[in-house]
Amino acid sequence: MSVELNDAAGERAIEALRVALGADAVLTSSENLREYRDPYDFKGSDEYTASAVVTPRSVEEVQAVLRIANELHVRLWTFGQGRNNAYGGSAPRVKGSILVSLREMNRVLEVNDDLAYALIEPGVRFFDLHDHLRAGNHRLWASIPDLGWGSVIGNTLEYGRGYTPYGEHPATACGLEVVLANGDVLRTGVGGMSNSKTWNAYPWSFGPSHAGLFFQSNFGIVTKMGVWLMRQPEVYLSGWARFHDDDAVGPLVDAVRELMLEGTIRNLPLLAYGINLGEGEATVGEDGWGLRFALYGRAGMVDAQYEIVRAALEAIAGVEVGRRLFRWDERDKVENHNDKVQGGIPGMELMDVFMTAYGEDTGHLDLSIVGPLIGSDLVERISTLRALYAQTEFPYLVGILLLQRSLLHISTLFFDTKDERQTRAAYDTYAFLAEELARTGYPIYRTNIQHMDLVADTFDFNNHAQRRFNELLKDTLDPNGILSPGKQGIWPKAMRG
Amino acid sequence: MSVELNDAAGERAIEALRVALGADAVLTSSENLREYRDPYDFKGSDEYTASAVVTPRSVEEVQAVLRIANELHVRLWTFGQGRNNAYGGSAPRVKGSILVSLREMNRVLEVNDDLAYALIEPGVRFFDLHDHLRAGNHRLWASIPDLGWGSVIGNTLEYGRGYTPYGEHPATACGLEVVLANGDVLRTGVGGMSNSKTWNAYPWSFGPSHAGLFFQSNFGIVTKMGVWLMRQPEVYLSGWARFHDDDAVGPLVDAVRELMLEGTIRNLPLLAYGINLGEGEATVGEDGWGLRFALYGRAGMVDAQYEIVRAALEAIAGVEVGRRLFRWDERDKVENHNDKVQGGIPGMELMDVFMTAYGEDTGHLDLSIVGPLIGSDLVERISTLRALYAQTEFPYLVGILLLQRSLLHISTLFFDTKDERQTRAAYDTYAFLAEELARTGYPIYRTNIQHMDLVADTFDFNNHAQRRFNELLKDTLDPNGILSPGKQGIWPKAMRG
Repeated sequence: MSVELNDAAGERAIEALRVALGADAVLTSSENLREYRDPYDFKGSDEYTASAVVTPRSVEEVQAVLRIANELHVRLWTFGQGRNNAYGGSAPRVKGSILVSLREMNRVLEVNDDLAYALIEPGVRFFDLHDHLRAGNHRLWASIPDLGWGSVIGNTLEYGRGYTPYGEHPATACGLEVVLANGDVLRTGVGGMSNSKTWNAYPWSFGPSHAGLFFQSNFGIVTKMGVWLMRQPEVYLSGWARFHDDDAVGPLVDAVRELMLEGTIRNLPLLAYGINLGEGEATVGEDGWGLRFALYGRAGMVDAQYEIVRAALEAIAGVEVGRRLFRWDERDKVENHNDKVQGGIPGMELMDVFMTAYGEDTGHLDLSIVGPLIGSDLVERISTLRALYAQTEFPYLVGILLLQRSLLHISTLFFDTKDERQTRAAYDTYAFLAEELARTGYPIYRTNIQHMDLVADTFDFNNHAQRRFNELLKDTLDPNGILSPGKQGIWPKAMRG
Repeated sequence: MSVELNDAAGERAIEALRVALGADAVLTSSENLREYRDPYDFKGSDEYTASAVVTPRSVEEVQAVLRIANELHVRLWTFGQGRNNAYGGSAPRVKGSILVSLREMNRVLEVNDDLAYALIEPGVRFFDLHDHLRAGNHRLWASIPDLGWGSVIGNTLEYGRGYTPYGEHPATACGLEVVLANGDVLRTGVGGMSNSKTWNAYPWSFGPSHAGLFFQSNFGIVTKMGVWLMRQPEVYLSGWARFHDDDAVGPLVDAVRELMLEGTIRNLPLLAYGINLGEGEATVGEDGWGLRFALYGRAGMVDAQYEIVRAALEAIAGVEVGRRLFRWDERDKVENHNDKVQGGIPGMELMDVFMTAYGEDTGHLDLSIVGPLIGSDLVERISTLRALYAQTEFPYLVGILLLQRSLLHISTLFFDTKDERQTRAAYDTYAFLAEELARTGYPIYRTNIQHMDLVADTFDFNNHAQRRFNELLKDTLDPNGILSPGKQGIWPKAMRG
């Protein structure tokens, strides 16, 4: 689909935005706009370039942006920090869209110590939330993803994950404030009562619950979110298992699933090949398999849990288990990436790992499929993917995040974004693999802007009932189609083929 | 609002339903319809009476019912088992509606032993699911509410709760199949891919997640649901705390919250005054406070957890803690109500307790408010409610269900449904209390058909943004307004004031 912003309307919109929000709040120079391109698209391409970046500082300014966009029928594309790298960064699906950057709406509005939650704005980064909790001596840990520079709200709304017991980020969101396309402000759940004491503590509504509508969505702009936090534990154990034999993968995954279902392991463990998940930094090029897991709580209980985990995993031939233990007041001693992410400490270490292949111009795509948390199924899928990758020029590099009943099987394609041929080959390979996996029932949970239509196409139940349902909602909630058209394959009426 | 079914259209619809589904599938005699009235409405009233009950046996028959209702513009009201007692039972909000009973769609379609879930139809009762799991020797426990006769799906969609670690029922639903008002079939989450291996294991979609739209809702008819189940633990400990002094309530609630946040207590504890939550049956009229909680897992871990809980609660003056312990193979020895519900064993014992006051004609209403899980706040609320109840003819009888960051503060009004004056007084008292509590920020999470508009009115944020949003969705998804009009205060356009 080739759709671009109408230039004349765009110019008028930019002028109106300058009047409404001030000239400082609107960037249009090509130098500025270059920073907001998809960092992993081919360096010479301008396909996913915006026409301007507008930075509202309040709900009222967000409403002003929407009013102007509706009047002039221009397209917007919203982000919190724009660090959705490997999935498009801050770049819009439609060339020439105006980016709505929420970076300036970056306040931690409340921390509730008793109920262990924070109420935040979309510009708050994982770094910011962590620093705020430390500075205020709150006995609370945030869950963080691999890189700390992203927006907590942005990551959560994309179904992002971390690695503590609060690592299933979409499940930790409690209470959204959303500005709808028409400028109306909705608060989800019991936030629908204006003086409610439990907006960020109780996750459901009286009547239908609306929060899910605003995940991976173009139905509204989320301007506040409650996020549940973890009570600081007495001790934190960062653990790992290592093995070389592929035959251990199936039994290990089944054993970890049972430890998760019984509540012994409560975080989100990571299984990977070729990445060091044990002692030292998370370097690549390691020989063999690694599993990373963590335990949290009272010292005696964590010791007992570790013995249960150790016994269960070392019962599998060739598996060796290890750990490091930290008291809550030893948080400053936590240094390596594995210990940090499982301990809720944000960092940027993994950026170096991502840049190993081709220096700072290295791009990567994550093929992120959802599978059942069953050892034999994962073993088959690994075999399938190895065979498929062997048909391409890219190696099979894999990290597998274990949820309680499912897993995210994430294989990563690295390429040189200065090399047009290789970059295009990576995107084509991604499409080939995504379609092959969908054919056998393995959906993608999150994708880059280039493949949103392709992935949406694989959701085929009942003649694409979900797409038809999303289009009905889109046309109702955003009749002018101003909000992030094409996101996740949801197009407004005027832009549908 | 006084709205009734158009008689002529109703007659034609009933005839069409008989042709489409067979005469057996349509009940219209006044004797039959009497069973489907609100059991706790005044016995002499016919305000909430249906004109017929239709019982589809398949998705195709549900679609046939919807087609007829759309053609003839008649109102439907759907239920799984119709046991939503104290909230209306199976009775419709609009007199003369045609009830859609899903009792005949009662298959357990799948039990996945590895991933610990079942895929079920809406007619499956808690009894049925439990029996199915026992009969198949599945090492899986269902969470159940106080009475076992209700629909698992019906209860879950009303945000019902049980008392195991899977007691937050809306959070255990994974994957809905919904027939929309226009007959289209939608599957939520990764069920949008027709061959997906993880529909009932992975709870999110690619794009927006739609499941929340179909809770306490009149946007569609849910015909299948995945429900997550608990892995059978090695041992199960049914525990309690008892005390007499009101001063212990605050510290006890704060202590339990910390035990829940750290993961020591993982079930949903119940705090109550005047109900025996310790040894023996759950009789009423006890003197003093009781807390019920439970622990599950490996024997050594449960022992250690119990010591932590005991020490934390007995540190509060006047609190005495006790327990009973069951091995997984001692499930048939579990006899009393408290042990059964915390062990996922359905029963009907509590029905006798409900009938204590006025025999089998006893009605009751549950005033179910949501508050923060903070001791001092609960103590204040108890004091407020005692003072408010003292202005009425009803005593303050209370059970408080503890979620992880919030609580459901449920006070129950008992009355004699043969006594019109007393029955009306109970409903009026409920309205008085609901409005008083809303004024200070305590919303109702679930209400009876008589008070749905009143409770919806208390969700006042931004000029009732949630109601306006729900009405927009209602008019889009169900333009003829055939599905459960008035449910949770959501009315179709033609019936709005």
